[in-house]
Amino acid sequence: MLSLEIVARCSRTRARRGLLHTPHGDVETPLFMPVGTKGTVRGLLPADLHAAGSRMLLANTFHLSLRPGHETVRALGGLHALMGWDGPILTDSGGYQVFSLSHLTQLDEDGATLKSIVDGSPVRLTPERVMEIQHGLFPDVAMAFDHCPPDPHARDAVAAATERTHRWLARCVDAWRGSGAAEEGQSLFGIVQGGAFEDLRRASVEAVTQHDLPGYAIGGVSVGEDREAMMSAVEIAAPLLPEEKPRYLMGVGTPLDFLDAIERGIDMFDCVTPTRHGRNHQAFTSEGRVNLRNRIWEHDTTPLDPNCTCVACTRFPRGALRYLSKANEMLAATLISLHNLHFFHGLLDAIRTAISADRLGELRERFRLAQRRVGDR
Amino acid sequence: MLSLEIVARCSRTRARRGLLHTPHGDVETPLFMPVGTKGTVRGLLPADLHAAGSRMLLANTFHLSLRPGHETVRALGGLHALMGWDGPILTDSGGYQVFSLSHLTQLDEDGATLKSIVDGSPVRLTPERVMEIQHGLFPDVAMAFDHCPPDPHARDAVAAATERTHRWLARCVDAWRGSGAAEEGQSLFGIVQGGAFEDLRRASVEAVTQHDLPGYAIGGVSVGEDREAMMSAVEIAAPLLPEEKPRYLMGVGTPLDFLDAIERGIDMFDCVTPTRHGRNHQAFTSEGRVNLRNRIWEHDTTPLDPNCTCVACTRFPRGALRYLSKANEMLAATLISLHNLHFFHGLLDAIRTAISADRLGELRERFRLAQRRVGDR
Repeated sequence: MLSLEIVARCSRTRARRGLLHTPHGDVETPLFMPVGTKGTVRGLLPADLHAAGSRMLLANTFHLSLRPGHETVRALGGLHALMGWDGPILTDSGGYQVFSLSHLTQLDEDGATLKSIVDGSPVRLTPERVMEIQHGLFPDVAMAFDHCPPDPHARDAVAAATERTHRWLARCVDAWRGSGAAEEGQSLFGIVQGGAFEDLRRASVEAVTQHDLPGYAIGGVSVGEDREAMMSAVEIAAPLLPEEKPRYLMGVGTPLDFLDAIERGIDMFDCVTPTRHGRNHQAFTSEGRVNLRNRIWEHDTTPLDPNCTCVACTRFPRGALRYLSKANEMLAATLISLHNLHFFHGLLDAIRTAISADRLGELRERFRLAQRRVGDR
Repeated sequence: MLSLEIVARCSRTRARRGLLHTPHGDVETPLFMPVGTKGTVRGLLPADLHAAGSRMLLANTFHLSLRPGHETVRALGGLHALMGWDGPILTDSGGYQVFSLSHLTQLDEDGATLKSIVDGSPVRLTPERVMEIQHGLFPDVAMAFDHCPPDPHARDAVAAATERTHRWLARCVDAWRGSGAAEEGQSLFGIVQGGAFEDLRRASVEAVTQHDLPGYAIGGVSVGEDREAMMSAVEIAAPLLPEEKPRYLMGVGTPLDFLDAIERGIDMFDCVTPTRHGRNHQAFTSEGRVNLRNRIWEHDTTPLDPNCTCVACTRFPRGALRYLSKANEMLAATLISLHNLHFFHGLLDAIRTAISADRLGELRERFRLAQRRVGDR
């Protein structure tokens, strides 16, 4: 089972630095998890991911249940064997896919029926089924099946989804304990909903934390709402969550999001941004975002980011990355994804160091000035 | 400039082991060069290529002349900068593309006009132009522009192409010396033609070796002829080439080809097989070829090759590679390409060791038995 050891705190904000003890080793928090939706962070070898600073990965229950199927994953030795990854892994529950693939979904009190993105056939997800699949995948952390409402400002829908999330959580907890997954060391995180409404968020934290779980997540964010609404939800919910448990903000985010959320007490993040942007030739750098297909880089012999020690920045001139991007070569996606991950992990590393030194305010100010200079958030 | 130091010889065959001194370090021969047609061995990071055993790479003059263009490559610091590779590099001359893209080609005495595979526009290649492009790319080894006849058994056409190759070689040598490329340390290899005809092969070796060059290649093989014809061409030409110069058999081949050609005195090889097969989910293993999309591997927890120490074999069960292949994930191409390269380089390494121990015959026998057992060449 997973547990959080808090090793340092910021004196002015709720930021904390910790060590997350997992069945696959300790990882430092605040932590960013790259997304390997289908059981692979696209085009990246495990050792190269580790060299970029990745320590814990995320994979997707819904996608893996369709292909190769959780029985196959179990037969192969679980998700760690499938991904060739011996650090910790978290799987999301499919709740987000019910939202993001809502045009393919029928929801009812018992669960959701989605259309398979592989062959169009109906796929039934219920709290029990989602826990069964995750038991088969056997990540270190399984997420509860939640109902993520599409519009966080639509009060009636948010209230209904939030209450359903609570009923589904109780069923997830029963399934988790009943299947033996808990005893076998798999952790379950409950998910707080409540949209943009303070009272609903408070009520959701209260309901979710009635279950004594190894960790808790704030869900229903990063669904298209503005940053203010997202940070407001974090501001309300995070301090109410148990101090000694890890807090995970799902699907977030950008470098500025990390700083804002960590100051509000968040420990864990995941987002497709660094790898998806990497495949789309967009780089995050200490000098702002760079579109590597831009013609202006054609003859540029300088590194993508002069302050970066990743393989893309130390081995290749910017013009070479531009050529590989324009030629749609696989290596461009691999290199820029690795660079972006290196950048994200480096930022989290700087934040952890600043928390230990109680200098998070200085880091934020430096970050703000740098970002203003390059005209980018 | 490049030079070969022979360090061991087989007492029963013409096989020799050597050290190829290049401007980018020494590499051991017999040597296999992976193909990075467009300046990238698809999906493979330079460090991972090196870990698989690659020491010298091949890239393609024709493709790179179209995109990004040799002026751009020169501006970026040459092909080594473009490829992020600090070992030696060889570029083929475009002569093979004149053959392989013959439906897009018009040939005349002065050169060839191809259709661009990027935008369909006409591209003129002459011996002088090909040397100018390679001077811009600046690999360690440039290849002469040759006329590779499509049918090695069509005597009149082979004779004409072979004589033209000799006239073109004289122009390549003049351009190479005239441009300063030779003085700057770039080596030029001449190419022997002559198809399946002993007298034409002999005459071609004689004509080509009238130019004192750092190395020589046997071309016009691996164009669809049978193995006997190919090995017969090698058998005739290789012993006539200067003993102290590297001998390169272009576009070859399979593991058995290596043994046969090395015993006839060949030092260098290149072939797309390990990487192209890797992208097509075909693995070379010590137990024969494996199609990783085969359903029988679905639940297979054993390594792809139990005798292999590559990342694919040590990190992933065969069933995981099967899943990644079926899902068309980039990582499947990367992993199987790396495995195949590891297998090819491992075989060459075993051959080099056997030459030093003067036990090449034993290696061949073991190899023959193993291949017979698995029903594969």
